Amino acid sequence: MTEPDLPRIRLRPNKNAQPLRFGAPWAFTDTLVLDRRSRAVPAGSIVVLEDAERNALGQGAFNAGSRIGFRMLDPDLSARIDDAWIAARIARAAALREALFDAPFYRLVHAEADGLPGVVIDRFGAVCVIQPNAAWAERMLPGFVAALLALPGVTTVHKNAAGRARGLEGLDDVSGPLAGQIDGVIDVPMNGAVYRADILGGQKTGLFFDQRPNHAFAARLGRGRRVLDVFSHVGGFALAALAGGATSALAVDASAPALALAEEGAARSGVSDRFATRRGDAFDTMAALEAEGESFGLVVCDPPAFAPAKPALDAGLRAYERVARLASRLVEPGGFLVLCSCSHAADLAAFRGASLRGVGKAGRSAQILHTGEAGPDHPVHPFLAESAYLKALFLRLDG
Amino acid sequence: MTEPDLPRIRLRPNKNAQPLRFGAPWAFTDTLVLDRRSRAVPAGSIVVLEDAERNALGQGAFNAGSRIGFRMLDPDLSARIDDAWIAARIARAAALREALFDAPFYRLVHAEADGLPGVVIDRFGAVCVIQPNAAWAERMLPGFVAALLALPGVTTVHKNAAGRARGLEGLDDVSGPLAGQIDGVIDVPMNGAVYRADILGGQKTGLFFDQRPNHAFAARLGRGRRVLDVFSHVGGFALAALAGGATSALAVDASAPALALAEEGAARSGVSDRFATRRGDAFDTMAALEAEGESFGLVVCDPPAFAPAKPALDAGLRAYERVARLASRLVEPGGFLVLCSCSHAADLAAFRGASLRGVGKAGRSAQILHTGEAGPDHPVHPFLAESAYLKALFLRLDG
Repeated sequence: MTEPDLPRIRLRPNKNAQPLRFGAPWAFTDTLVLDRRSRAVPAGSIVVLEDAERNALGQGAFNAGSRIGFRMLDPDLSARIDDAWIAARIARAAALREALFDAPFYRLVHAEADGLPGVVIDRFGAVCVIQPNAAWAERMLPGFVAALLALPGVTTVHKNAAGRARGLEGLDDVSGPLAGQIDGVIDVPMNGAVYRADILGGQKTGLFFDQRPNHAFAARLGRGRRVLDVFSHVGGFALAALAGGATSALAVDASAPALALAEEGAARSGVSDRFATRRGDAFDTMAALEAEGESFGLVVCDPPAFAPAKPALDAGLRAYERVARLASRLVEPGGFLVLCSCSHAADLAAFRGASLRGVGKAGRSAQILHTGEAGPDHPVHPFLAESAYLKALFLRLDG
Repeated sequence: MTEPDLPRIRLRPNKNAQPLRFGAPWAFTDTLVLDRRSRAVPAGSIVVLEDAERNALGQGAFNAGSRIGFRMLDPDLSARIDDAWIAARIARAAALREALFDAPFYRLVHAEADGLPGVVIDRFGAVCVIQPNAAWAERMLPGFVAALLALPGVTTVHKNAAGRARGLEGLDDVSGPLAGQIDGVIDVPMNGAVYRADILGGQKTGLFFDQRPNHAFAARLGRGRRVLDVFSHVGGFALAALAGGATSALAVDASAPALALAEEGAARSGVSDRFATRRGDAFDTMAALEAEGESFGLVVCDPPAFAPAKPALDAGLRAYERVARLASRLVEPGGFLVLCSCSHAADLAAFRGASLRGVGKAGRSAQILHTGEAGPDHPVHPFLAESAYLKALFLRLDG
């Protein structure tokens, strides 16, 4: 028992310590005793959390300046939170992904669920992109870099500091290389297609792994059908559908750089002859396609988060309804419609309700075939099970 | 406009007709005007439903003796609900399954969601098994048989009258052949394995298609691991895992006939050398395996419904917790645990909570990798979206 000589932070007297004993990942700052001593503990320090009776609950990261004041790292007080500890957590996360996937392209670390709170790491073959979105991870960044470089095949580590959460933790937004250099755009194989990911270009032209199983499910539905991929980004659904046997795919997006990458991906995937793009506002373009008399055997809409947070919920749900209404009109009789939401504030029931209202307003009726979620490289912490943000509704519309 | 000359049934004055206008599949009997005239309408008759102002809402099946007095069949008053109408609905259902699957082994009709309320049809190659669980379908059974025999490759139709719902509709429980004859047990290919389904033997030795995607997901997790399949039935998870590359699988079930079929399936799948069975009570056998010092890289528990209806909910959740506790102790460090529930009364949050409590009581912690549902040949009616009964929780347990 080598209980570490760490600062000690205490829960307020009236706060229930049981959730933390049973695995809760956080203590909010307003549940902690914040006196002059604790306020002086630097953000991102490793501390011991105690209940009001001074029983230790575990070790974790402290940040008096964040709403999440304490993030549990290890209930074991004899553990040392050092570079070796980080390497062990990353190795555990890597072992899961190696069991799940045949090639090293995946979310390698998904924050709390992988025991590394606030830390997101995506792996693109030899390149890892880390988002240290909590102060403790920023402090211990060299340990993360060393652990990643120790994984077979990893040569390059890049820091992405664009996450909104960093500001809440008092961190800057300066991205950049941590080891090696990324030269240009990366080829990412998924679901039989090859995607082009501009990792340095940020969200607009990067790549998300979370939709992988939904791309695969949609590709199955798209076989032998004309596919419309609205809010296509770099062609996630369209290229998977073409690789799976769709007769054609049209990708619609407002971003010219994203569509250019989608076209490069189509070339890399050997499906350029069946692929087309159309740049424009998604709503306007769907209305225009209807006016042109177009219809498709599979329509997919994967918009940005219309309801990222509670204040935007009502407007967001109206936007999802409108997407569903416009898209429904473009689906052939007996065809398929896939509607996605990555809004944290809209839960599945609310999103599904808005979507089905939109389908109904288009004069169509639907069967729900499947409700997809993020892939298993985005595991969920048991105490955050309600937080799963990604929803993909697979519908078949009537004849 | 050839509005049919059908009996007319009316909603009570204070009852809201809007849900029916927007696609609700049912009107409960206590919302209907039940006078001498309407009570005289034979169970299973096709009627027109009207709102209190005598505006027609659609055509459907009436059964004054059932809690579900009216089941919507077609909002179009000009449609004729006859054998051709049934054949069109079945053709529509078949078209969906043909888009989803490469071989004709699936749930062909999933009741309300396929526009055929109360009717369940499973297809096993040349054999269709129909469960006419509503009075209207019993009356129109010859139309169903003709429509099924018209599907390419179907030679045999069998009636399964064991469904609990039939009693509620005033129907008997006499199963039997409707066309052709089933001789013996049927080979069913799924997920690279071959299952043996004794269709006449009932639930104990039949086969369910609903777990197909969960079998596939588990098989991926089981590659290169020892697998324990508790409540194995005819070997659903075990045989898929062996076909997917598990090093061995042990199937535990209380039913000797089910285990015999699992062994036949293992032989048909060419995996007998890696497959073993153990007959016994699931709880006792898990405890015994722990006492023997056994552990597995993947443990799956797919028990019968412990909480089929509300009164059984508390006891059912305790049983799920116990399953999770016993099973967790058999999972290797970093191994996988799959916990299933087919209980209508236990929703996902309740089932997940009970399962995670059990994991915690075993001294383990978990990541949630995936939450599976029934496959897409079990579509869901938009108004019954909360009714999805099958849950499969895929967990990874700590090292």
